[in-house]
Amino acid sequence: MVVKMDKAQRIANKQKQISISEFFEKNKHFLGFDTHQRAIITAVKEAVDNSLDACEESRILPDIHVYIKRIEGGKLELITQDNGPGIPRDSIANVFGKFLLGSRFHAIRQTRGQQGIGITGVVMYSQLTTGSSTTVLSKIEAESTAVKVDLALDTKNNRALKSNEERIPMEEWFEESGMQTLHGLRIKTVMSAKYQRGRQSVHQYLRMTSIVNPHATIRLKVIGKEGEIVDEGEWVRSTSKLPRPVVEIKPHPHGMQFGTLQRMLKNTKERTVKSFLRKEFEKVSPLVAKKILEHAELDEKRRPAGLPVESIQSLLAAFMEVKIQSPPVDCLSPIEDLLIKKGLEKAIDSRYAATVTRNPSVSQGNPFQVEVGLVFGGDLPSDGTVELLRFANRVPLMYQQGGCLLTKAIESIDWRRYGLEQPGGKGVPKGPAAILVHLASTNVQFTSEAKEAVSDNEEVHDELRRALFEVGRGLQSHRKRIGQREKSREKFDLINKILPEIASKSSSMLGREPPDLSPIITKIMNAVFCEEEVIWEPREKLAKCSIKIYNYTARARAYTIIAKWPESDSTSIVQNERGGRKEARGLWAWRLDAIDPGSMASIDFTVSGLNKGDWKEAEVFYRGNGEVIGSEKIDEALLEEARKQERLQEVVEEFVVPSASTSSHQKDTVSLDSNIVSSEIWEAGDKLF
Amino acid sequence: MVVKMDKAQRIANKQKQISISEFFEKNKHFLGFDTHQRAIITAVKEAVDNSLDACEESRILPDIHVYIKRIEGGKLELITQDNGPGIPRDSIANVFGKFLLGSRFHAIRQTRGQQGIGITGVVMYSQLTTGSSTTVLSKIEAESTAVKVDLALDTKNNRALKSNEERIPMEEWFEESGMQTLHGLRIKTVMSAKYQRGRQSVHQYLRMTSIVNPHATIRLKVIGKEGEIVDEGEWVRSTSKLPRPVVEIKPHPHGMQFGTLQRMLKNTKERTVKSFLRKEFEKVSPLVAKKILEHAELDEKRRPAGLPVESIQSLLAAFMEVKIQSPPVDCLSPIEDLLIKKGLEKAIDSRYAATVTRNPSVSQGNPFQVEVGLVFGGDLPSDGTVELLRFANRVPLMYQQGGCLLTKAIESIDWRRYGLEQPGGKGVPKGPAAILVHLASTNVQFTSEAKEAVSDNEEVHDELRRALFEVGRGLQSHRKRIGQREKSREKFDLINKILPEIASKSSSMLGREPPDLSPIITKIMNAVFCEEEVIWEPREKLAKCSIKIYNYTARARAYTIIAKWPESDSTSIVQNERGGRKEARGLWAWRLDAIDPGSMASIDFTVSGLNKGDWKEAEVFYRGNGEVIGSEKIDEALLEEARKQERLQEVVEEFVVPSASTSSHQKDTVSLDSNIVSSEIWEAGDKLF
Repeated sequence: MVVKMDKAQRIANKQKQISISEFFEKNKHFLGFDTHQRAIITAVKEAVDNSLDACEESRILPDIHVYIKRIEGGKLELITQDNGPGIPRDSIANVFGKFLLGSRFHAIRQTRGQQGIGITGVVMYSQLTTGSSTTVLSKIEAESTAVKVDLALDTKNNRALKSNEERIPMEEWFEESGMQTLHGLRIKTVMSAKYQRGRQSVHQYLRMTSIVNPHATIRLKVIGKEGEIVDEGEWVRSTSKLPRPVVEIKPHPHGMQFGTLQRMLKNTKERTVKSFLRKEFEKVSPLVAKKILEHAELDEKRRPAGLPVESIQSLLAAFMEVKIQSPPVDCLSPIEDLLIKKGLEKAIDSRYAATVTRNPSVSQGNPFQVEVGLVFGGDLPSDGTVELLRFANRVPLMYQQGGCLLTKAIESIDWRRYGLEQPGGKGVPKGPAAILVHLASTNVQFTSEAKEAVSDNEEVHDELRRALFEVGRGLQSHRKRIGQREKSREKFDLINKILPEIASKSSSMLGREPPDLSPIITKIMNAVFCEEEVIWEPREKLAKCSIKIYNYTARARAYTIIAKWPESDSTSIVQNERGGRKEARGLWAWRLDAIDPGSMASIDFTVSGLNKGDWKEAEVFYRGNGEVIGSEKIDEALLEEARKQERLQEVVEEFVVPSASTSSHQKDTVSLDSNIVSSEIWEAGDKLF
Repeated sequence: MVVKMDKAQRIANKQKQISISEFFEKNKHFLGFDTHQRAIITAVKEAVDNSLDACEESRILPDIHVYIKRIEGGKLELITQDNGPGIPRDSIANVFGKFLLGSRFHAIRQTRGQQGIGITGVVMYSQLTTGSSTTVLSKIEAESTAVKVDLALDTKNNRALKSNEERIPMEEWFEESGMQTLHGLRIKTVMSAKYQRGRQSVHQYLRMTSIVNPHATIRLKVIGKEGEIVDEGEWVRSTSKLPRPVVEIKPHPHGMQFGTLQRMLKNTKERTVKSFLRKEFEKVSPLVAKKILEHAELDEKRRPAGLPVESIQSLLAAFMEVKIQSPPVDCLSPIEDLLIKKGLEKAIDSRYAATVTRNPSVSQGNPFQVEVGLVFGGDLPSDGTVELLRFANRVPLMYQQGGCLLTKAIESIDWRRYGLEQPGGKGVPKGPAAILVHLASTNVQFTSEAKEAVSDNEEVHDELRRALFEVGRGLQSHRKRIGQREKSREKFDLINKILPEIASKSSSMLGREPPDLSPIITKIMNAVFCEEEVIWEPREKLAKCSIKIYNYTARARAYTIIAKWPESDSTSIVQNERGGRKEARGLWAWRLDAIDPGSMASIDFTVSGLNKGDWKEAEVFYRGNGEVIGSEKIDEALLEEARKQERLQEVVEEFVVPSASTSSHQKDTVSLDSNIVSSEIWEAGDKLF
């Protein structure tokens, strides 16, 4: 009998298994190799990210050199050199020639690379476009020679092909690396690519990297076909403090997926469900484990491996019912306020800068933390859209801006409320500002392997919005404060100059004694002023803050003055004659009992542990009746929230982490129209005579 | 001797191979499973795309049913049912349970699925979030029973685990499928997901799918926990014509990558380089092969396998030097003008619609083709940004709009020139319009596995811009024409009504005979008008086009009138008394030798092969001196380009493909202020007496 071939069978017969290397070769655009301009940026990015990760993991201050050379046929030679730990001989082939081989895939902590794809993609792209193999030169500290080897990719089998392997003596390593280091890695490859300057360029990528990695020194040199210098850059580290080491943590019960729990239960070496819960999860104490099992109605002696689907579902439900502490956050490495500000100032000259580092939070069991910086004014162009600087785990994101959660969060805010232009109250705002957003997470969920855009996540979106609201409010009150203060100062100056003149002239005309003007001036002003100044004392290396409260009203005034200062583990208030007390982290309060009409009270204190430029403006709040021009009434609800957060933090945390704080400084003032006060002056003059 | 463990070795020891299933489980957001709302859309999309592909490949008109049911615990049950060819028993496990296994990965032709990832991702996501296995019911025509089987995923080993496999008799298949078909596929699964209505929803995805797949009938039913209907939809096919079958082609020498050529040379069964070139590439004739080898200075008898790197590089260089015909384009399946228009009209009520289907082009050896549709006016909201409808290979793209090449092309056009609002001349324009963009390609390069955004590509970008310019120009001239015509019509009406009245009144007052007004009216109007109308004749099933040219000037006029008509393989001009001649594809020309002052000439012709509503407005151009209101002077350069393209097409093509054409229709007219003409009338009245 002849069986007619079915349509379905014809299709099925064509089924073939595709190797992961073939997959990425066909889909090289998933990895960021879509255009020739982007290819070189992606290659540099993968190499530099790896260098930074390896250096930090080995507690080495990173020195990274990038050389690019234009060669014939639309190709570029790329060399990257670092002073990292190097890679042992036996691992080189796997690291560079095998996709999906990595040391960090299953680890829960913040790193740049995670998937074991990046640098293998570079080797693949070079080979695909030029047939070139990639030369790796690696020196590890434990060995007296370096290893040099050429690597190609066996795409069908997803493995590396080595050739020309040799040992290089120390002197040669010193010479070739151009670094006097006992360990490091040098990568050399040739690819079809195009070097361009501009907003999306290697130069910009390295510049942005240096902003959020101030502990790294990075050099770039780009040579043309004739040996001419096409581009260069040097970003020297501005701090010798490495980021706090990130600790690997176990999974947290919250956000656990059914399939993951099922697999963990199957693979565990623990013999009872109770010890499984205690040993393989974060924050599951014996008591918590007991409560979970009670909730799930499971015997604590049950063997993990044999658990049926229904019991796993009960366990998952119990995870959400029982109170469990948040996961530890020492797996995260935020950039922190002061460094963001410093970085932004390095990149952009502006008048105002504010930053917010939110407390760590958790999404689907993954700890994450959001940081936002906003700079305003100065040299920033005022006609275009605001510049967005996006970062994830200290890596700048250069492409896919429109499809990124970080952008969407910015677009979702009505920036018109905060004084920026924004047609329709949606989209990227316009005006002389730049917004920096950093997402630190143990598992940044990108939209693709190229890691250029963050995919949608409600919790992260909400945290971003909260941080953006905060910098927005800061910008708004900065502009309001500046405006008020300018106006009052002008009024004050005019009154003090014009009134005495009018008084003396009219007195002489009438042949009378000039009157005492101070009660009149007070009556006209009828306001309380606050002026604040932060000065850097280079000799003592102290930041000196002085706050003055002028009472130009007819009655005595009493206030509690609260100043925001850059509190951290390394800073402290050293001189503070008035004493006062701590209100919350970064907030200090003083009670001023009676400021008489026409008089002034001052508060002076100094802060140690800062560098020049770290702190330029103290935000001053007050508690008390009426308005204080140049200061803002403190929001007691917000303050209470801050105190609660701090207490919570102290309970939950076993390690020191930076707490939520906002700070801002002001470089210059905004000029305002001076006509506003004139009518009041003449009115006052009318009353005088 | 104790060797101190090196930092580098410590890191290296943690290296682990990750299976592709583990990779996608951790990175489920790459596959489109980032949020619960998106998860159900992605799942439906993967199932429906597969059904459409399988049906078209087997030349079956697709019937697809989607059922969704809300169940406890934030889960949805999803059932999809099609009348496709089904999947043979032995292939089911591989199709649903193994990543990177596919029949289309290496094939060069336009299909929706290619990677062998999509539906396995659905099985994975269901298992991960709910522990559910996926039930597959498959009936192939060659067998008398159906197969039913439950599938789970062995993530560590990237393979499927089957259970509960059984055979189902025909009657039961009929009953369960709800379809009287001898072949088909039913998938049932349960996942953590959320059903929502709105712009990004299953409903919208299916609606968009029906627009670009008018040959498919799709039904949706969504049931709530209480059995209530949450949502439903039915999109019945509007044509029984399946898209032209897409043919698989061989690679084309242009855009060949070094690595790909190297692998082809290594794996070929051909014994000489010459036969390798002739057999394994498109458009390489014996003569072309000879020229390539001469250029590369290679002996044609050389064995392909042994070729050194330099020779491969020479071959690649020769590919670009020797003239080679473009690849065949029957591997593509564009939607085509009329269907786009029909689809857009089904979706959006508008006054004006224009479409452009560009000629196929090639990028990196991959044939691709761009289509654009624009609708304007009608019910479309005029305050927001223009609605963008993006499609790739007939699949609607619902997410990642901002990061998509199709969007970027739209944003790069200065739409202000074409009458749409666009702040700064960049970004998505505003106004009462919708723009549809379709990219058909043998290799759509998406930014990620989720296939929601197209990655950057210069050639595709340029083609898109050309198509968008064309619809933009169409919109502009439509608005201009409507404006002119309205204005002239009002003027004409007023003159014909008022002048005779004034004349008769003043004549009777003066006791004179009323004067002959026609030379005066002509003098006042001093213009040539064109009016055109397309009427549908239901009895004869013909579209009847009538063009009238009124000469209201003082001297005789001569023109060549050129009308755009929907020329295709199935349409023809059947009645055409004036004769004329073809100018180019879709353009017919008539010579009108002398139209006397005050007289009118008319052109009438009918077109067969159309359906009602296919053609509603004929664009009319003229060649000759002066202006013809309601018509546009033909751009000879553009016309020449169109003729050249057509000749080129005839030479290159061996198969019938649709050629580039633009067409537009108009449903309604724009109302204009009538005050504009009044002053001229009174001026004319002044002269009269």
